[in-house]
Amino acid sequence: MADGAVAFRDELFSAGLLIETGVDGLYGRSQIFESVVEAIDRLATLAGAHHRATVVRFPPIMPRAVFEQTDYLRSFPDLTGSIHTFRGDDREHARLLARLDRGEDWTASLTPAAAVLCSAACHPLYPTITGRLPAGGRVFDVYGYCFRHEPATDPTRMIAFRMREFVHVGDPDDAEEHRDQWITRATDLMAGLGLAVEAVVANDPFFGRLGTMLANNQRDEALKYEIVTPIAGERPTAIVSCNLHRDHFGGPFEIETADGAVAHSACVGFGVERIALALLRTHGLDPDHWPAAVTGRLWP
Amino acid sequence: MADGAVAFRDELFSAGLLIETGVDGLYGRSQIFESVVEAIDRLATLAGAHHRATVVRFPPIMPRAVFEQTDYLRSFPDLTGSIHTFRGDDREHARLLARLDRGEDWTASLTPAAAVLCSAACHPLYPTITGRLPAGGRVFDVYGYCFRHEPATDPTRMIAFRMREFVHVGDPDDAEEHRDQWITRATDLMAGLGLAVEAVVANDPFFGRLGTMLANNQRDEALKYEIVTPIAGERPTAIVSCNLHRDHFGGPFEIETADGAVAHSACVGFGVERIALALLRTHGLDPDHWPAAVTGRLWP
Repeated sequence: MADGAVAFRDELFSAGLLIETGVDGLYGRSQIFESVVEAIDRLATLAGAHHRATVVRFPPIMPRAVFEQTDYLRSFPDLTGSIHTFRGDDREHARLLARLDRGEDWTASLTPAAAVLCSAACHPLYPTITGRLPAGGRVFDVYGYCFRHEPATDPTRMIAFRMREFVHVGDPDDAEEHRDQWITRATDLMAGLGLAVEAVVANDPFFGRLGTMLANNQRDEALKYEIVTPIAGERPTAIVSCNLHRDHFGGPFEIETADGAVAHSACVGFGVERIALALLRTHGLDPDHWPAAVTGRLWP
Repeated sequence: MADGAVAFRDELFSAGLLIETGVDGLYGRSQIFESVVEAIDRLATLAGAHHRATVVRFPPIMPRAVFEQTDYLRSFPDLTGSIHTFRGDDREHARLLARLDRGEDWTASLTPAAAVLCSAACHPLYPTITGRLPAGGRVFDVYGYCFRHEPATDPTRMIAFRMREFVHVGDPDDAEEHRDQWITRATDLMAGLGLAVEAVVANDPFFGRLGTMLANNQRDEALKYEIVTPIAGERPTAIVSCNLHRDHFGGPFEIETADGAVAHSACVGFGVERIALALLRTHGLDPDHWPAAVTGRLWP
């Protein structure tokens, strides 16, 4: 129930684990909350160590031109975060301030910047992959803040959150295998933390009338799996997703396999804040009192 | 010279330390670059351990209402990053996509979101400080991504960068002492990393005609000190700043000292990417070959 989610958020505020900002979906994080997030990040590092992945970190914003090359605006316009800035002179600045002082919308003075908010941790990665891939493809380790404009009182639905990913880019079969292996591996990893998890076929929240068709298609082809666990919402919440992109990124960003074919890609994404919230909901708000089997894995 | 900065950026790209995105000021970071940043972060933690600060982490975006309460739009409109999103229906979505397909500005379909990009790591903090401060005030430890729209080819001038801060909030004298102590402490800390540093009175890049007056005023009152070091630009680059805010935040956010007076604040901010770049410029692009005295401090 939505009420359960609101009550859980209030508990998190009261315990000081999340810090209220006045905007739904936007919260400060306490030291304890962050230490849980860091532990989950370390656990993901260990679980993916065999990949010997190339570690790359991107800021929370990405080039507008790259964003336009993904089909994000087609599929999820409502989640988009476009960045706008002021390029005017003193006179236009005076106008902006007059609007601000009158409590009016001052953004009319702004123009689009060359960057937008990161829609997914892996989106900035694809255009940076240049030259043919080696045989067997490559695995990248990315981690960063994502923005999704879906303000909600459910604390698991944040507008700014972090996603830790292992992205495979290579042949179609290898990409699919990467995705499939991570369904099992991540399910085991989350179950090992005492979470009641299940891997289910899922779909992204495609926008509008056309979106229903895209979502059905994604489900029919079983491209996206989510590892879900009950947190505080009406239905179980996705804490990890395992996605087969096919040539969705390899195509537009012209990524080539060793054979010169269009590369396929797949990723596993750990929603670190959601995993932290699942742990806090399942084991209680004080990690000092979590089961030894759980803390032993998080803080070995 | 600007050319020196461009050449340095090219070296960083070639060495794979920074990753080109096509947007000036926006770069990916390699594992080595991040390990230097993490080491600087740890060093700052140790240097500020005596504060027993309250650790809080905020996402890279902050409430629009809070942003409007700071005077950032008055002083630095050109650095601002306002976030806009799509709230239309299928029909408006079709219009957006038509504009996108024609290569036109598609942002006309967007409306301002309830959040903007973080202008400084400490800005989201102030409104969360509620109730009277204890005697002696409080110190907060914040760290996060900041956005400043000042695209430049000099790699030290990023539009998305991280700032690690210790913020004191309390009596005027304590705030000033916090600032003054950090001028010395941070200068010593940076000198200990083999950087040729100097603490200088500085000013923020206030916008426009009025800005010149504000900048002069800030310098006359010696509110802002910067620890500068030669990196690749024409002039030395600020890598740490030590700021006395007076009641600049305590006033609008109604922060009260133990006596019920308006709280003063001060902060030290470590520009972690700039410190990393200063180290790479001074000691070479391969941390494996940095002087033992430097690596001994960074990776003890």
